[in-house]
Amino acid sequence: MKKRTVRAPFFCVNPKAYLYGDAALKLAKEADELAEKYDIDIFFTVQYVDAYRIAQATKHLIITVQHMDGLTVGPGMGYILPEGLVEAGVQATFLNHAEHPVGINQLVTIMKRAKELGVLVIACADSIVEAQAIATLKPDVMVCEPTALIGTGNTSDSSYMKQTNEAVKSVSPKTFVLQAAGISTIEDVRQAIESGADGTGGTSGIVCAKDPLQTLRDMVEAVAKVRAESKEQ
Amino acid sequence: MKKRTVRAPFFCVNPKAYLYGDAALKLAKEADELAEKYDIDIFFTVQYVDAYRIAQATKHLIITVQHMDGLTVGPGMGYILPEGLVEAGVQATFLNHAEHPVGINQLVTIMKRAKELGVLVIACADSIVEAQAIATLKPDVMVCEPTALIGTGNTSDSSYMKQTNEAVKSVSPKTFVLQAAGISTIEDVRQAIESGADGTGGTSGIVCAKDPLQTLRDMVEAVAKVRAESKEQ
Amino acid sequence: MKKRTVRAPFFCVNPKAYLYGDAALKLAKEADELAEKYDIDIFFTVQYVDAYRIAQATKHLIITVQHMDGLTVGPGMGYILPEGLVEAGVQATFLNHAEHPVGINQLVTIMKRAKELGVLVIACADSIVEAQAIATLKPDVMVCEPTALIGTGNTSDSSYMKQTNEAVKSVSPKTFVLQAAGISTIEDVRQAIESGADGTGGTSGIVCAKDPLQTLRDMVEAVAKVRAESKEQ
Amino acid sequence: MKKRTVRAPFFCVNPKAYLYGDAALKLAKEADELAEKYDIDIFFTVQYVDAYRIAQATKHLIITVQHMDGLTVGPGMGYILPEGLVEAGVQATFLNHAEHPVGINQLVTIMKRAKELGVLVIACADSIVEAQAIATLKPDVMVCEPTALIGTGNTSDSSYMKQTNEAVKSVSPKTFVLQAAGISTIEDVRQAIESGADGTGGTSGIVCAKDPLQTLRDMVEAVAKVRAESKEQ
Repeated sequence: MKKRTVRAPFFCVNPKAYLYGDAALKLAKEADELAEKYDIDIFFTVQYVDAYRIAQATKHLIITVQHMDGLTVGPGMGYILPEGLVEAGVQATFLNHAEHPVGINQLVTIMKRAKELGVLVIACADSIVEAQAIATLKPDVMVCEPTALIGTGNTSDSSYMKQTNEAVKSVSPKTFVLQAAGISTIEDVRQAIESGADGTGGTSGIVCAKDPLQTLRDMVEAVAKVRAESKEQ
Repeated sequence: MKKRTVRAPFFCVNPKAYLYGDAALKLAKEADELAEKYDIDIFFTVQYVDAYRIAQATKHLIITVQHMDGLTVGPGMGYILPEGLVEAGVQATFLNHAEHPVGINQLVTIMKRAKELGVLVIACADSIVEAQAIATLKPDVMVCEPTALIGTGNTSDSSYMKQTNEAVKSVSPKTFVLQAAGISTIEDVRQAIESGADGTGGTSGIVCAKDPLQTLRDMVEAVAKVRAESKEQ
Repeated sequence: MKKRTVRAPFFCVNPKAYLYGDAALKLAKEADELAEKYDIDIFFTVQYVDAYRIAQATKHLIITVQHMDGLTVGPGMGYILPEGLVEAGVQATFLNHAEHPVGINQLVTIMKRAKELGVLVIACADSIVEAQAIATLKPDVMVCEPTALIGTGNTSDSSYMKQTNEAVKSVSPKTFVLQAAGISTIEDVRQAIESGADGTGGTSGIVCAKDPLQTLRDMVEAVAKVRAESKEQ
Repeated sequence: MKKRTVRAPFFCVNPKAYLYGDAALKLAKEADELAEKYDIDIFFTVQYVDAYRIAQATKHLIITVQHMDGLTVGPGMGYILPEGLVEAGVQATFLNHAEHPVGINQLVTIMKRAKELGVLVIACADSIVEAQAIATLKPDVMVCEPTALIGTGNTSDSSYMKQTNEAVKSVSPKTFVLQAAGISTIEDVRQAIESGADGTGGTSGIVCAKDPLQTLRDMVEAVAKVRAESKEQ
């Protein structure tokens, strides 16, 4: 599989285990329409069992799983076979999320498999130090959400975002940076992109909103607006 | 979901990570026809991404995953949400396979979730001692494949099979016992059932056979024959 | 090594990682004097690095580690070799504490090694269901501290303690039951023993007390008093 | 604690779980005499329970553990508290050995704790890619033993050693490189140092030798000779 090209600014809808089945499909279809309407790349994370169905029902989304294992075809009871993902339509995977940490040697192995199969890698780090270590592996996208800052109100701090962007780019200039911690308003979306993030998105900010579909529409539109403004300059 | 009823003798096709996508679907369709033809219950394990597609394309198989996590709807990045499985058509899960061991407290938690959602549990043990411990949790099916015996040629030993059957039944009389270690011929299938196993099946004995589809047909037919013979008596 | 005999009611001082080095040694010496004074068996858990020193400096304590691995002499970088523990004077180990859960097959393997070497096993469970599963492995002592009850105020509930005692004894009559959740006063100590526990003890109730040494003295004295009272009856 | 200074070329005796108690102490005393005789820095890895005793009985060795956890004083049942190690005389720790891999976020946390307490870190990697990622964390020593090369006879290949040395130094110039894969003769020792390694050493090459003490003497002497020769040039 040829790895899909990603264009910044992009958006990421990450429903984790909040949504599944029909509810996930409904949000995915909305996201797919927005991806087309605004010509914007949208990563949409799925439960594995929903990947095929959502891939079949959408045209523009980057179907993304929330973890992938590094095994090859053969035994490996209960693990996530990369080849199986690709055949089902998956184009990207998150790795090393704070809720799903992996060993360093595992990460190297999984990223090698992702490269072989053309799967985009969105790698996560808990600290700037960890982000720089992982950036040496040249993931396609990095997420920097220092757990030390969670809940401190600093997540929306522009200087922090700039600092992490620079930390990653200094090691791997082509790696995109996704800033998605605590994004719940269109102002948050705007600030993340204006602070230099290549992409933004959310989980609870979308799926726990009063009107998730409308919130998603507003956020993607906000990304498109910032993109348009930056082109005018 | 009402938990599906299982009738012994049953069969289990467990392709692990040997098959995925179209190849898995093809074998599943064949197994589905055999389940209908012989009116036999067949567990068919899938890659998560293939569950929905195979569930849609078959009518009789017990769609089975190779592991399930114990989380509930909410966060839980990259874990296998039970509700998602059920909505996709999954009716059973393996747990604690030697290639995917779980903690004791995890097993208790996952089995509680399986019970809530009506998912059949096939629990695995590496030794008779472990099998008895797990049998106290009353799984629907237990697999006893002592790693100590693997490769020793003792796996097809009738007295060993009888010993494990009794060990499990003495603790949990309603738990079915699946004997599937090293099954690669119709004689193996026959011996397993005649030794008192409630079910048998295979992985490499089927997927690595010269003709997997024919091997599957022969094995399921053998189960049906032994069933017929035992009814005559 | 011949496994040490334990007599109920016993006491358990479990400083976890609150104490180490000189501070742990000081508390251990006090506990050792109390073990002699009251002729009571006291499990005293240590950081591995303190085991030898505390074993050398005490005569009566049951030197206990907080976890042990199941490896044998050979490779196994960084794991806790049972033979090494025994030669250093360790006589008992906790296993499967909520802060250090182990797989079921691991627990079976480690307990086999403990049996070979005469190391007493104190196995922990998070729920009554888990306790019964582990009790089939016949540990020397079981700890039942359902995480579901932690912080609910139910930990000191007599009926709960009786229920867990019975659940364990019904499966393994010779296994002692240690009730140590939330023990912080001599009344707690008394109630645990009177509710049928074979032993009691504490962590924060002792090490975080205003005067840990005096608290320890009071608690051990309370165990001795309850013991004396029950003999009189 | 002030972190101990290490001088290249150094030596590392890593008995893993092959030795413990008196046997480990005996080898440690010999290593200690050699460290004094040749004025060479020797890392000596111990079972945790032996750390205090060996630290007390030796004067020159760098007492090294095979893993350390990242917890702080408090709860943490069964984990390796850094403060406890330091008070027992430990001055260094291996981390992320192939037999004991850690998560990336864990490695960052543990190395932060090591820095706070002045504990030297010897970090291991399975591949050059992983070595470069870890080198960004600036460990004191790095071990590069690609599992892909184990058993291939390539471990003693000079060009491979030079390649890994350069890979690490290019990211972290002050990090020492330890080449210790398959070292079993004094020629291996010589070749490792001459290929640019800052240190060498062994496990089975020493503890499984016919005469471990003499083998150790020969190897350390070989390091001293290569050092002398390189000074003459």
